[in-house]
Amino acid sequence: MASKRPRNPATDDLEQLRSICTRVLGGHGFRSAAEILSAIPADVGKDQYGAGGIVTELEAEICNVLGKPAAAFMPSGTMAQQIALRIHADRRSCRVVAFHPTCHLEIHEDKAYKRMHDLVGVTVGNARRLMTFEDLRAVPGRLAAVIFELPQREIGGALPAWKDLQQQVEYVRSRGAAVHMDGARLWESTPFYRKKPAEIAALFDTVYVSFYKGLGGLAGACLAGPEDVIAEARAWRKRHGGTLFGMWPNAAVAIAGLRQRLPLMPRYHRHAVAIAEKLRAVRRVEILPDPPHTNMMRLLLRTSENKLRAAACRVAREQGVYTFKWSGSGYTSPTRMVELTVGDATLEFKPQEVADIVAELVR
Amino acid sequence: MASKRPRNPATDDLEQLRSICTRVLGGHGFRSAAEILSAIPADVGKDQYGAGGIVTELEAEICNVLGKPAAAFMPSGTMAQQIALRIHADRRSCRVVAFHPTCHLEIHEDKAYKRMHDLVGVTVGNARRLMTFEDLRAVPGRLAAVIFELPQREIGGALPAWKDLQQQVEYVRSRGAAVHMDGARLWESTPFYRKKPAEIAALFDTVYVSFYKGLGGLAGACLAGPEDVIAEARAWRKRHGGTLFGMWPNAAVAIAGLRQRLPLMPRYHRHAVAIAEKLRAVRRVEILPDPPHTNMMRLLLRTSENKLRAAACRVAREQGVYTFKWSGSGYTSPTRMVELTVGDATLEFKPQEVADIVAELVR
Repeated sequence: MASKRPRNPATDDLEQLRSICTRVLGGHGFRSAAEILSAIPADVGKDQYGAGGIVTELEAEICNVLGKPAAAFMPSGTMAQQIALRIHADRRSCRVVAFHPTCHLEIHEDKAYKRMHDLVGVTVGNARRLMTFEDLRAVPGRLAAVIFELPQREIGGALPAWKDLQQQVEYVRSRGAAVHMDGARLWESTPFYRKKPAEIAALFDTVYVSFYKGLGGLAGACLAGPEDVIAEARAWRKRHGGTLFGMWPNAAVAIAGLRQRLPLMPRYHRHAVAIAEKLRAVRRVEILPDPPHTNMMRLLLRTSENKLRAAACRVAREQGVYTFKWSGSGYTSPTRMVELTVGDATLEFKPQEVADIVAELVR
Repeated sequence: MASKRPRNPATDDLEQLRSICTRVLGGHGFRSAAEILSAIPADVGKDQYGAGGIVTELEAEICNVLGKPAAAFMPSGTMAQQIALRIHADRRSCRVVAFHPTCHLEIHEDKAYKRMHDLVGVTVGNARRLMTFEDLRAVPGRLAAVIFELPQREIGGALPAWKDLQQQVEYVRSRGAAVHMDGARLWESTPFYRKKPAEIAALFDTVYVSFYKGLGGLAGACLAGPEDVIAEARAWRKRHGGTLFGMWPNAAVAIAGLRQRLPLMPRYHRHAVAIAEKLRAVRRVEILPDPPHTNMMRLLLRTSENKLRAAACRVAREQGVYTFKWSGSGYTSPTRMVELTVGDATLEFKPQEVADIVAELVR
């Protein structure tokens, strides 16, 4: 989450040029409040404390899309995933949960799973590559649950081969642990596997999906799984302070985003692959993973933070293009890492145009 | 919260007649999604993860209205209050918090304060009357915090006399405990005390206020208090899964409700007092408290659940008036208790009209 990141001058300077930018390189672009809210029908069915109306409709649609018996709308993925793990842990009388070192629970939630749910988090494998079967085998002792993040966001949205994934899931089950999917970007994984969301979700006991990333909604998430688990998740949602008086605005925008953008995932992915092809020719740029597995990729730019900041501002001023709000340190110094996510706004750039802009950023 | 209540046939039947009702007796009436969202300016400043835009603006306005140095917007009061208590408890190395037996944390949150924050809740005094100085003196041992709910919703919105409140707060402080206000309906308390919200809030270390009750907003709350406490509360909000990607729709409706309806509180209160005057002449009806301290009152109706359900449906069919969605068992049997909250919709009824409708309900 943004608030976690230290102040980044590149970001702050670029933010000031936001108003003069006419195009945005990544994601779905700048949208006004009115544009976002226009997705809500005037007579949309309102819920009361998460029950009824468009919220119940969205939950039914998610059950259908994910092929799960039950789903509960949640204010956030942070809440949804802590709740899923808490339930799996309580049912197994075991506090230990395992996940990739870059798991959202580990790096973005300030150990909430420990502070509020008394869970012990064990990281599995190497932060810079996908979790493997051998990594999982190396974890000793009992486990309540293992999280699989599909795709693995912090390493460019990489995805394990289907057979590897199947083998790992089967192994985790054989140890008596639940398998939970962090599917914040599950929608974006479908072109890589050439499978529907439900076919991927079928491997997992519980699945969290998000509505505001690839689908472009407001905040909100769903947790899907067996009836009894989701009934318990609703009780936990209330305890977390997440069963809100009216959840219909976020649910209404979510359902619109799901219908509009889930079918666009293959197109976003093809565009990401085409962009990567052109980027390959740009000096001082490395693509991660190459080719991209999803609509996203990380770019390692051999430049310094100061130079990148100056270049991003120059591109904004000269071309009216808003590029990268955030850069992190790359694996080697001086390298900066940025994340490019292909969305509606990116579709307006030809792949060569994107490569030219990135070349300008590392010039 | 609604989901906690057992199925109530009176409610379910009346709900089916909702569409033929042209007026609503309590609160602000039925409002469509479009009506509610129309409070959001088209170019409203959007936050990112609760930072910036209208969220920051609302927090500043709440600081001003409550006279506190800092405030954090929260998705719900459930979250805001658990967080406040957790912070007070951690700072005092004491897990014990005390509150009235009808406190929201005790009766509507399924012991979340214990399950997630390892707090021990001690109830103070009698569920059917206000907490007293003597009640507080009878609580043994160390306390981290005491919650004062102003007004005390479950007993008809009763308020302690100002001097009693001052004495109790002073006493709690002398024991080293924090004083926290459950101000879900603080706005509604201002006419009784003839004080501004900030004058009442000044007694307390931390104050929670709500935006969707008297103010008629969407879901949402603020926790206000000292800078360092609120900074810590923001960290807890994130851990709870409450620092949402975009919190601007709820904040925008909240700020509009605050500006529109806070000035109306004396009018709601006067109308409630005038209604109570007329209700006093109705047989088989008791008003709690009489006269009402705020814009709300509980009515004890000497009738059975079945009769009340039938009468509510008859009033809906014959007069097009939607009355009481919910009734609970009164203190004696057969008595039903309903809650009447005076809002925009109630202002459209003359006091005698309200008395006539209630008379019809207990006929």
